[in-house]
Amino acid sequence: MSTTVKLEQKVQAKGHEIAAELRAMFQKKGIYVVNLIGSPGSGKTTLLEGLASRIKGRAAVIEGDLATDEDKKRIEAAGMRAYQINTVGSCHLDAAMIRDALKEFSIEGIDLLFIENVGNLVCPASFEIGEDIKVAVVSVTEGDDKPAKYPKAMKVSSAFVVTKVDLLPYLKCDVARMKRDVQAAMPGIACFTTSATTGEGLDAFLAWIDARAKERSAESV
Amino acid sequence: MSTTVKLEQKVQAKGHEIAAELRAMFQKKGIYVVNLIGSPGSGKTTLLEGLASRIKGRAAVIEGDLATDEDKKRIEAAGMRAYQINTVGSCHLDAAMIRDALKEFSIEGIDLLFIENVGNLVCPASFEIGEDIKVAVVSVTEGDDKPAKYPKAMKVSSAFVVTKVDLLPYLKCDVARMKRDVQAAMPGIACFTTSATTGEGLDAFLAWIDARAKERSAESV
Repeated sequence: MSTTVKLEQKVQAKGHEIAAELRAMFQKKGIYVVNLIGSPGSGKTTLLEGLASRIKGRAAVIEGDLATDEDKKRIEAAGMRAYQINTVGSCHLDAAMIRDALKEFSIEGIDLLFIENVGNLVCPASFEIGEDIKVAVVSVTEGDDKPAKYPKAMKVSSAFVVTKVDLLPYLKCDVARMKRDVQAAMPGIACFTTSATTGEGLDAFLAWIDARAKERSAESV
Repeated sequence: MSTTVKLEQKVQAKGHEIAAELRAMFQKKGIYVVNLIGSPGSGKTTLLEGLASRIKGRAAVIEGDLATDEDKKRIEAAGMRAYQINTVGSCHLDAAMIRDALKEFSIEGIDLLFIENVGNLVCPASFEIGEDIKVAVVSVTEGDDKPAKYPKAMKVSSAFVVTKVDLLPYLKCDVARMKRDVQAAMPGIACFTTSATTGEGLDAFLAWIDARAKERSAESV
């Protein structure tokens, strides 16, 4: 094994350790944590805007971007508390960034925390940041071949959310194929077909998250 | 400086060396090389399909994906020679992958080579793979905030191609804002507004590439 690989493993092990500490802390506080991963423009922020009217008061959002605080502002405009992490060069959020964010961002009084990762369907799949679950977000405008072409992101996710289905009349995109490929990569994964514009699928996705959170509480008793 | 950083720099230096060798080889053969970078589903392959009728016979394509050879098949169906690299875990192409691909894939008789990088608007921006230029590809369906949010990809690119503009009537996307943000990140960058569906902008983009290739030939005399 090369020295580079050994050092990378050491860095990753440290990340796992911080992620485990965060997970224990979130669980103790009764906060369920969802790590949203998807391409730039897959509709992660818009999905959260769509959910906002249903969850504001009980949820908060940590936003990850290379640059700008536009997503934080959008979430706040939708009525939820938000914190912006700028990774500058980094292609994914890591556990230490979340730990540092929580020194400034209060999560008291909530039971649901969304962490929107950097727009990238590859790298965020390899990092734990203290979440209970990862959710992969793919838009119909990206094309129906994406689950097959980015299998790692599907394999690490507990749910697969197809976004922007209101645009289907104008596109060639076979949602059934997407779901088949997702299920092949990750058998049993929950699939949701959504549009933040029409509201389609948002209640079902939220009900599923809440059921998972309830399961976790039951397990921890 | 940590040992990790030193080792990373050593790996990157080796990559630069291979990239420089490839660049010299391409130049000697009179082949102009374009490295296409963009998010998953930004329309890189569709852009090449749109260009195919104009460049087949003189161009070839190297496709980079984590998995599948779907893009290679699409390019071949459009009448161009293509080679598929599967990076498996890696979030970007590197120079050694291109060198290895060229052991199997002949580039004799062409004067234009497109290398379609892994779908990722972050990591491929940091790697040289022997190309003359990088071109950033962003679709209108990703949203008009993407150039501001992914400035590194803009800074390393010589051209910015907006794709899928035929879908503008169904979206909220301000293309003028995209161009302003791109120009702010990379003053003087060439901008093209395209649709592979209607053919809009494809001739202008190709004419611009050919003019760059001609400039390079003139410089190397």
